[in-house]
Amino acid sequence: MAEETTATAPPELTVDVPALTALLDGRYADVRRTVRELLPTYACVLEDAETMPREEFRERVKDVVLEIAGTGAAGMGFPKEYGGGGDIGASIAAFESLAYGDLSVLVKVGVQFGLFGGAILQLGTQRHHDAYLADVVSGRLLGCFAMTETGHGSNVQALGTVAAYDPTTSEFVVTTTSEEAGKDYIGNAARHARVAVVFAQLEVAGEGHGVHALVVPLRDEDGAPLPGVRIEDDGAKMGLNGVDNGRIWFDGVRVPREALLNRFADVTEDGTYVSEIESPGRRFFTMLGTLVQGRVSVGAAGVSASKSALTIAVRYGLQRRQFETGNEAGAEQLLLDYGLHQRRLFPRLARTYALHFAQEVLAGELHDVFSGIRDDEETRRLLESRAAGTKALATWHATDTIQECREACGGAGYLAVNRFAALKADTDVFTTFEGDNHVLLQLVGKGLLTDYASDFSDLDQLGMVRFVAGLAVETVLERTRVHRLFEQIRDALPGGSDDWHTDSGLRDPNYHLAMYRFREEHLIGGVARRLKRGVDAGLNPGEVFSRVQDHVIAAARAHVERLVLEAFVAKVASVPEEYGDLRLVLNLLCDLHALSGIEADRAWFIEHGRLTIQRSKAITREVADLCRRVRPVARELVDAFAVPEALLRAPALIGGRP
Amino acid sequence: MAEETTATAPPELTVDVPALTALLDGRYADVRRTVRELLPTYACVLEDAETMPREEFRERVKDVVLEIAGTGAAGMGFPKEYGGGGDIGASIAAFESLAYGDLSVLVKVGVQFGLFGGAILQLGTQRHHDAYLADVVSGRLLGCFAMTETGHGSNVQALGTVAAYDPTTSEFVVTTTSEEAGKDYIGNAARHARVAVVFAQLEVAGEGHGVHALVVPLRDEDGAPLPGVRIEDDGAKMGLNGVDNGRIWFDGVRVPREALLNRFADVTEDGTYVSEIESPGRRFFTMLGTLVQGRVSVGAAGVSASKSALTIAVRYGLQRRQFETGNEAGAEQLLLDYGLHQRRLFPRLARTYALHFAQEVLAGELHDVFSGIRDDEETRRLLESRAAGTKALATWHATDTIQECREACGGAGYLAVNRFAALKADTDVFTTFEGDNHVLLQLVGKGLLTDYASDFSDLDQLGMVRFVAGLAVETVLERTRVHRLFEQIRDALPGGSDDWHTDSGLRDPNYHLAMYRFREEHLIGGVARRLKRGVDAGLNPGEVFSRVQDHVIAAARAHVERLVLEAFVAKVASVPEEYGDLRLVLNLLCDLHALSGIEADRAWFIEHGRLTIQRSKAITREVADLCRRVRPVARELVDAFAVPEALLRAPALIGGRP
Repeated sequence: MAEETTATAPPELTVDVPALTALLDGRYADVRRTVRELLPTYACVLEDAETMPREEFRERVKDVVLEIAGTGAAGMGFPKEYGGGGDIGASIAAFESLAYGDLSVLVKVGVQFGLFGGAILQLGTQRHHDAYLADVVSGRLLGCFAMTETGHGSNVQALGTVAAYDPTTSEFVVTTTSEEAGKDYIGNAARHARVAVVFAQLEVAGEGHGVHALVVPLRDEDGAPLPGVRIEDDGAKMGLNGVDNGRIWFDGVRVPREALLNRFADVTEDGTYVSEIESPGRRFFTMLGTLVQGRVSVGAAGVSASKSALTIAVRYGLQRRQFETGNEAGAEQLLLDYGLHQRRLFPRLARTYALHFAQEVLAGELHDVFSGIRDDEETRRLLESRAAGTKALATWHATDTIQECREACGGAGYLAVNRFAALKADTDVFTTFEGDNHVLLQLVGKGLLTDYASDFSDLDQLGMVRFVAGLAVETVLERTRVHRLFEQIRDALPGGSDDWHTDSGLRDPNYHLAMYRFREEHLIGGVARRLKRGVDAGLNPGEVFSRVQDHVIAAARAHVERLVLEAFVAKVASVPEEYGDLRLVLNLLCDLHALSGIEADRAWFIEHGRLTIQRSKAITREVADLCRRVRPVARELVDAFAVPEALLRAPALIGGRP
Repeated sequence: MAEETTATAPPELTVDVPALTALLDGRYADVRRTVRELLPTYACVLEDAETMPREEFRERVKDVVLEIAGTGAAGMGFPKEYGGGGDIGASIAAFESLAYGDLSVLVKVGVQFGLFGGAILQLGTQRHHDAYLADVVSGRLLGCFAMTETGHGSNVQALGTVAAYDPTTSEFVVTTTSEEAGKDYIGNAARHARVAVVFAQLEVAGEGHGVHALVVPLRDEDGAPLPGVRIEDDGAKMGLNGVDNGRIWFDGVRVPREALLNRFADVTEDGTYVSEIESPGRRFFTMLGTLVQGRVSVGAAGVSASKSALTIAVRYGLQRRQFETGNEAGAEQLLLDYGLHQRRLFPRLARTYALHFAQEVLAGELHDVFSGIRDDEETRRLLESRAAGTKALATWHATDTIQECREACGGAGYLAVNRFAALKADTDVFTTFEGDNHVLLQLVGKGLLTDYASDFSDLDQLGMVRFVAGLAVETVLERTRVHRLFEQIRDALPGGSDDWHTDSGLRDPNYHLAMYRFREEHLIGGVARRLKRGVDAGLNPGEVFSRVQDHVIAAARAHVERLVLEAFVAKVASVPEEYGDLRLVLNLLCDLHALSGIEADRAWFIEHGRLTIQRSKAITREVADLCRRVRPVARELVDAFAVPEALLRAPALIGGRP
């Protein structure tokens, strides 16, 4: 709890909203603006989601997706020769902006262009590109991405569908080996997909070569399932009911040899398996790695959904009065003038800015890698790790923020017309699709512990346990990047020694970074120590992992938190001086984000000697004080998100469109 | 993060599920069993909620409510002479059990029998009871509870509807004074209510007497709104779409003088206002206090919904395997054997037990007060405070638990057939209806600071600030009950002095209670000090309150947490020795609940000198260890909730009914 401070009020800041929007929009301002101008046309889809029966709404969403495809906004990431925009960064920016609209439309765009089209682009070769991409980009050919199975969600390597090569006919025979091995939750499967990219265990001459992807036709021209293909509807879902998710089973479905998406491995006509990547694990992760764009997109969508929710809640808090103020007779106090209301909304607002800039960095790296600007194995591993971690943090943030904003709008927040119902229901699956967040953070943790060395990319979690347990803890630590970073910053800080944490100002970004880096390094070291100790004590690796799992995840989370903070700090530092107040305001938000992050984990910092009790309490006071300073510019800070007014709706809350 | 402990495994416990169910069911085991046996008949309503258009589903839910009314399960709290069961405790038990089924049905039952019927019973007199109650209990007369207004949700005292007495005709004229003063979110209003209990500012001869309730007819026999009554549909909501919420405006609607629910105040024919309660504030809170049953019911429903979610998630965790164990070749590890999965589910399971027993105590007090067994002003105030606080904690717990359970079931948790969609959407409003949770905790805080003295029951928050600021901090503290409790327990602990917190065992309930009581007392003292300091520094009371608000709420929360823990500890202590393992298992859960509560707030305890860093880390280890000990009996612990199998559904997750 913050104590009252008696400091004199700092000067009021003014925010130039268009300038701040331009700063947020960054490199792809034009793309974002175009999509934001397109979206109000489809504002009515938000109402259709409430009123149309499911089947009708699915058709409606499909039609809208095709219309959007017609504008070029959906295929920006595909090569120009197939009708795409040839710019991966632009495609992420467009997707992020589309997320201000109906999220069934967004996810259907993601399924068709990101997952289905992306798999053909990334895993296929020229022959597949020529055969499919133009139709994918135009929307003439709708498809699905059939990876997940009922029995194997996160553990894709263990999936049960088999594609066995038959050299007598030069075909693959695709078979679902058990009911549990049926593909499940597959978007576009229940109604609209004519073909699927199917992930299956490849078998050649009785030998298994691990998971590979093939293009398998599902339906004929009339939409009826082809022979050997059984499709079931997943039915009603919590949200995203405009997307037709379904299950697929294959019973000896034959596809030609050329159906194999053969960028990384192929089967020759005579039945020889060939691949330039020798290790099956590494091959698997290389293939999966090319699909990283999906995770970047989902994270972006989570940030956008948070922006919509915050825009409504902050504006409502500036309109709604409740209980007397004691200031003027009769007038009730604005919700947003209550300290608690500020505490509920502003740290989440600051974190939304932080995650926005973290996504910007991530999308930039994605663009560079997939445009060949900077593409080596290590860069790819770092990108995959960053994408997985940012997706986890951004989607949990969305779930948390939308919930808090809903509650901050009271019972009105419960009415569908006020947007939260759909925002909540539609985004809820973000935390578990495109990789369950906990599983993703485990991946990040594995990368940290093995320093992303490609030699270890095919280690499963037990292999990781054995590997780390075989190293000295110091070795694990010294290999980490944060260790080197931390050494640098410690020297740069006043005092330059172990008492650094008591010297510097609470609002010094170097202090924040030092704290975040210390936490990360310490947690990684702790995991390494515990893995080693567990194995040395004779526990089996599974048991060791089970016990250390929450520690692995905490280390991964600390790592991603550090990356997010670094992105925000770097962004603020890059704003030119002449931006004046804008720079100060971003500084304020960055401090609020960093300090509320430390506050939330202050027990850990105290327990590990990096926070005195006195300073811990000072941070709590500082967070409250920063909230009060954000208050006068709160409206501008959400306006800068530029969520189109027609999409906010919420007539009773903020005077939006009914 | 917990370190590995090398302690030998404790002996395995066995749980007698029927015996544990009996313990949970308590005094009203028969009622609960009857409702649980009734519910499977209506399991199909859970599917109707997904498939039926809104209007059709509303009719369906109404029909089910009438059928349930026919069984007597809905009217147990009404006097026998009107067809009720004459037992308030039984009515809460029945409602709690009904919450295993579709929640639109539950909330419609709550609206008709709890809010509408309850208001007539509690605020009306013989003439109203005779006129309405038999028809209310049978369901022949459907009504609504028209309190909330668009412009005034939580601040009921400030609502805008006026009921002015016209002595020339001996009538009240009910008028909505502005668009914002329209009643809003009123359950049963959009379609089914024929009459409403309307809360309005009573005016007699031009003088205002504060908020009172009147019975106002809304619709004619054919369901058409009566002259002067305008009704609007609230439309689609996030959930509970089987309940027809709506808005109502009154334009000079005349009702006879006898329509005033006159238990606490009346207007004589010649236009004289009479009341035995002089203070308008106290009168208002006395009237509102009689409606406390609604809050007790919502809290109970939150606990039941948590039980449904946990039953599905725990059973899924015992069925689903993922990734290798390292134990036996090929076999994947059960989800529930992962330390993190246990950490996600078991503290919430333990807290669900804690809240169950806290609700049991609360329902017992409600029964005693409203059955006249123990009914004095102080007991009522304590009951109201406990009801408000428990409702807040139980409904936040439901939101949190259902979310975590959904995520713990991955993508499958997103399918409607697996129950979480409806559980989430339907319960979401629990945190803000029947009193916004934050506002409720403010009420609790006010009670703590003024020691529930009836003289101060009409203080608003600013009055409270002025009152507390006028007392010495020691005086505020000495008046609190927890202060006296704390003094006792401190003396009873080993050492008997300030070092009590380092002496006793981590699993000693007296240690847990001492920690919870210390926190409560310290927070109350801190609030008192800050209020005083703020006022002394010349800040106006509104500003002071705004700044101290989160502290007030933290104190209130600590108070309710203490009550919940005390209820659990007392329950465990009351289980006879011969229950053997059952007693041990409940002890385990109680320890897990208490320690994970301390762990979650360990920063605070460290900051306030009540937890050493060493002990803090020991608690984290202990929580992990307790989770491992709960693991072998997890299935039995959820089975004991006795959620009817047909209501769990989740065919793919737990083999339930499709």
